[in-house]
Amino acid sequence: MSAPFKQVTVVGLGLLGGSIGLAVQAAMPGVRVVGFDADAEVRTKARELGLAHEVPEVAADAARGSDLVVLCVPVGAMGQAAAALADGLSDGVVISDVGSSKASVARALAEALPGHTVIPAHPVAGTERSGPDAGFASLFSNRWCIITPPADADTAQVAKLVAFWEALGARVDMMDADHHDKVLAVTSHLPHLIAYTIVGTASDLEQVTQSEVIKYSAGGFRDFTRIAASDPTMWRDVFLSNRDAVLEMLQRFTEDLTELQKAIRKGDGDTLFDHFERTRAIRRGIIEMGQDDARPDFGRSDHDGQQ
Amino acid sequence: MSAPFKQVTVVGLGLLGGSIGLAVQAAMPGVRVVGFDADAEVRTKARELGLAHEVPEVAADAARGSDLVVLCVPVGAMGQAAAALADGLSDGVVISDVGSSKASVARALAEALPGHTVIPAHPVAGTERSGPDAGFASLFSNRWCIITPPADADTAQVAKLVAFWEALGARVDMMDADHHDKVLAVTSHLPHLIAYTIVGTASDLEQVTQSEVIKYSAGGFRDFTRIAASDPTMWRDVFLSNRDAVLEMLQRFTEDLTELQKAIRKGDGDTLFDHFERTRAIRRGIIEMGQDDARPDFGRSDHDGQQ
Repeated sequence: MSAPFKQVTVVGLGLLGGSIGLAVQAAMPGVRVVGFDADAEVRTKARELGLAHEVPEVAADAARGSDLVVLCVPVGAMGQAAAALADGLSDGVVISDVGSSKASVARALAEALPGHTVIPAHPVAGTERSGPDAGFASLFSNRWCIITPPADADTAQVAKLVAFWEALGARVDMMDADHHDKVLAVTSHLPHLIAYTIVGTASDLEQVTQSEVIKYSAGGFRDFTRIAASDPTMWRDVFLSNRDAVLEMLQRFTEDLTELQKAIRKGDGDTLFDHFERTRAIRRGIIEMGQDDARPDFGRSDHDGQQ
Repeated sequence: MSAPFKQVTVVGLGLLGGSIGLAVQAAMPGVRVVGFDADAEVRTKARELGLAHEVPEVAADAARGSDLVVLCVPVGAMGQAAAALADGLSDGVVISDVGSSKASVARALAEALPGHTVIPAHPVAGTERSGPDAGFASLFSNRWCIITPPADADTAQVAKLVAFWEALGARVDMMDADHHDKVLAVTSHLPHLIAYTIVGTASDLEQVTQSEVIKYSAGGFRDFTRIAASDPTMWRDVFLSNRDAVLEMLQRFTEDLTELQKAIRKGDGDTLFDHFERTRAIRRGIIEMGQDDARPDFGRSDHDGQQ
């Protein structure tokens, strides 16, 4: 199969952009990858790491000649990053992105680049690391990529973007942007908000020291600290751009938490047990679908070597 | 160094009890391990797996001749499990446990076995698995074990229990039971409550299907499902037995969550950024202290093999 695009521009060379650069080079040897980042230090680092074949100094130059541009910047910076490319864009180029919220990004990209084909996408993949040295070529392997084509999108262009993500190892789903934003509010945004919150709560206690929190974190807390180590700029933008869906899911969560709180206060063990019992099925589903490591404790190896 | 105890009885042969049985056999070859579980199927399984040298049919028989008894049952079952041993206990035996809350367990054990030496302990270690086949000998390696001796505890007996846990690979700390319960409320109990809650919330949505939640769980949600797959009986008992400290920590968490909710509603990006920025330090501390896997994503290997 020939590659769906001949030259790909990746704008924003952090964890996601860097991984795309590496993954395209690994999976599509004939395709040229051009990278760009607004930060000069990141551009230098990206050249050293070989995240792209070429990393020009000017955004518009990076776009020149490409038939796919993937924006990998925080969602609040999408419009500005897209506008900077305008002078270099070829006719027929597909503009896409990897942002974690889709309705607001679709609007920002359409406004910044009127007349161009915009097909937003979101690979549901990542780690807690950020920056140009955080990327790796297999990040998207066996992960889902959600594409949210506008109603009037060209079917052939959408098919090319699907083929692109599948070539990087991803499984592709399509849905409308509003539904994406609701789904991700619960599977990604709310979990991050809660993790950031509890890590903050634990840091601020007077009766329990931060050193104690760190020492005894293996009781469960440490799991939350991984997510809460994610990039602050990216996550600020996610919550601002997907506000309504996040607030709606947060409302549901708070209702459920209040119910369990009441059960604890009343000593109602049956309600607690029933709730704790039924949440196991979801974990089984995730393991069966290959969406998490099946080994206990995620396969962590911090017990002096082996488990 | 000679082993601190000659014969150890482990009551409750699930993840923790089974791991102690295996760890003692691995670390202290001369020490005899006797196991017991109230469930006949678990006793049979434990014999097959060799979790102990011997697994008698009657609790009191399991206690006979031991100079250490470690209760590894849900905290709500401690009193009853201890009382069942009474007839078999030797003079001078040390009664200990591995329960996740300590003040209520100390009371239950003292009431069930008046006149005996009770020194409660809590190894801060575990996985989401439960049952006799979940145990492994290195579970306690490099994990903290918190011992909460009563004010009038015999120093020599406490020192033996410290030596026992250190021989299993743990690092030992001592504190009073009430402080333990506050510390663990934040590092373990609250994280579990929140994880159970959000997994329940996600299962109950009408607009987002359970299948979507599972498919796109790699965006963060899947981390919470691991903890929410923990043993329901154990966790029901933890919340009932450490009610006051859990409710206090939950109150703090809810206040902080409300503050971030308000920032999202108002579009206050600075408050969000400042909060998300400062939670990274805790993660660094945990990694530096060897309390988590330093690799991205806990070193998960579900990307078709490697990262």
